[in-house]
Amino acid sequence: MFGTAAAFDKALGNLPPPDRSAIEAARSRQTQLTKPTGSLGRLEYIALFFAGWQQRERPRIGRARAVIFAGNHGVVAKGVSAFPAEVTAQMVANFEAGGAAINALARAAGLEFKVVALDLDRPTADFTCAPAMSEGDCLAALEAGAANVERELDLLVVGEMGIGNTTAAAALCARSMGGNGLEWVGPGTGVDGAGIARKVAAVDQALDFHRDAPTTAFETLRRVGGREIAAIAGAVLRARQLRIPVLLDGFVTCAALAPLAVQAPSITEHCVAGHCSAEPGHARLLARLGLDPLLQLNMRLGEGSGAAVAANVIRSALAAHGEMATFAEAGVAAG
Amino acid sequence: MFGTAAAFDKALGNLPPPDRSAIEAARSRQTQLTKPTGSLGRLEYIALFFAGWQQRERPRIGRARAVIFAGNHGVVAKGVSAFPAEVTAQMVANFEAGGAAINALARAAGLEFKVVALDLDRPTADFTCAPAMSEGDCLAALEAGAANVERELDLLVVGEMGIGNTTAAAALCARSMGGNGLEWVGPGTGVDGAGIARKVAAVDQALDFHRDAPTTAFETLRRVGGREIAAIAGAVLRARQLRIPVLLDGFVTCAALAPLAVQAPSITEHCVAGHCSAEPGHARLLARLGLDPLLQLNMRLGEGSGAAVAANVIRSALAAHGEMATFAEAGVAAG
Repeated sequence: MFGTAAAFDKALGNLPPPDRSAIEAARSRQTQLTKPTGSLGRLEYIALFFAGWQQRERPRIGRARAVIFAGNHGVVAKGVSAFPAEVTAQMVANFEAGGAAINALARAAGLEFKVVALDLDRPTADFTCAPAMSEGDCLAALEAGAANVERELDLLVVGEMGIGNTTAAAALCARSMGGNGLEWVGPGTGVDGAGIARKVAAVDQALDFHRDAPTTAFETLRRVGGREIAAIAGAVLRARQLRIPVLLDGFVTCAALAPLAVQAPSITEHCVAGHCSAEPGHARLLARLGLDPLLQLNMRLGEGSGAAVAANVIRSALAAHGEMATFAEAGVAAG
Repeated sequence: MFGTAAAFDKALGNLPPPDRSAIEAARSRQTQLTKPTGSLGRLEYIALFFAGWQQRERPRIGRARAVIFAGNHGVVAKGVSAFPAEVTAQMVANFEAGGAAINALARAAGLEFKVVALDLDRPTADFTCAPAMSEGDCLAALEAGAANVERELDLLVVGEMGIGNTTAAAALCARSMGGNGLEWVGPGTGVDGAGIARKVAAVDQALDFHRDAPTTAFETLRRVGGREIAAIAGAVLRARQLRIPVLLDGFVTCAALAPLAVQAPSITEHCVAGHCSAEPGHARLLARLGLDPLLQLNMRLGEGSGAAVAANVIRSALAAHGEMATFAEAGVAAG
């Protein structure tokens, strides 16, 4: 899909915009629907957003897919997670058996579900003292992400699973947007104070170790990211090339975009932030990415769970936009 | 159902609590599900809440109904709305034809839909200079609300339609909770500055006119409420008697509970605030009612629209709670 690291970075410089004429057609339709102008608030903006990316006056969600990428992280050797690394594979099995939160939430939102496990038995290197991935490994992860984006999708929901990956996410944010471990680290799925201190130290060590390395999107993903994180970056970029709107999950998912956004701030233009998680860095990251989260439910699970809940808000928005009568159709005075 | 004004007020003193043992069973189940404890945030609390009211470990939403009550208001003579009073009946016809926002949103949330028009050709009196309703009319409205709550419902969603009713809502809040017109009035569906000034004046006149009247829940509803507002109060109380959880919509819907909450603060215990609307008084009212809104989407339409969007969040919460595998079932290490 991208072929080389340089091609990936170059693709970031060539992002298609939304269809302005579809947005205008949708905006015109909005003014004719039987409600005071603007009274559906954010639902109206969602409809215009989807009109622009789906290039139709009445956007719809027929086929929507939640893709959860999973990877393992060498940095767990630093004691950064409350769970052992084996849980990543156990949870992938749980996803495949349909028993995880995301399975139930994807069903409740009418989403196709796919889990993509990336070399779980071959964790990335500990990025505090080495690049997490070789160029080839990082590129393969980017391609794996892109390969799961089919042209026919009306919406792509992305999420992740990977014991230790909130530490990678914090490192990605700090290296991309400035700040240090303390500013970007949080409890993740639930480490205690000592665990947080280990996460902070790991991030600060990583920032120091990679200080003089190139800061392109690819290099940052490769050095302090992870396979599932690079896959998300590849999927989001591929979705953009296909003008498929993307619904983002929590801190780790959004952190995958941090290095891309430094190079191409408009990379988030086809993305909706499904929610703001309880992980402290997420709110700060969303603000830096220019994303206003749809939901704030104090969730902190990852695996696409918050985005899947938000998918139903999008369905509601498009249902109102697409199905309401106009003032003329309903014989209602327009005020 | 209630029989007399005194019986209605008395029923407020006899509100059943949730089933604590069902809540404990649900809480125990939560700890066994394949996720870090607490990581689904608010979704977990929603599941416990529904467990308590539905009196089962795994609550569900089979039959859920959105009921929209509609009424007309004499206070429109004071120029308090951007729309003419005829729009109430026109919108009821639109509801019945399936063309309004709430129709699309109820479909998107799998809700049965019912609109109950209350004497639209007989507006309430202008409450700035008379009680809005006679005792008989107010009681009939309360009973009409209660009559639309069937024992078999798993969830009741309530909303309203009534040109002029944000002024009644502001008057209800001010008379119940203190403050004046300026503190509780907002633009509603979209009046300009002069319209807001007229609304403020109407509320202040009403407060003055009814100053020495009794302040029971019934009398406040009767004096400065409206038929659709009293119907909501009756429906919410009846739902409580049947232990059916209620999903509340915006400012007007919540204002129906203000006079009840003064007398019986626990009246909102079986209620979820679907959203916080853009109407400025709503956030303040929710805080006073002890309700934390699920969504904040800048909506200000009423007609149950925000609550209908929130219904899908509840579906998601109950799906995760009811369908997820336990650590033992999935063979996942519990951390």
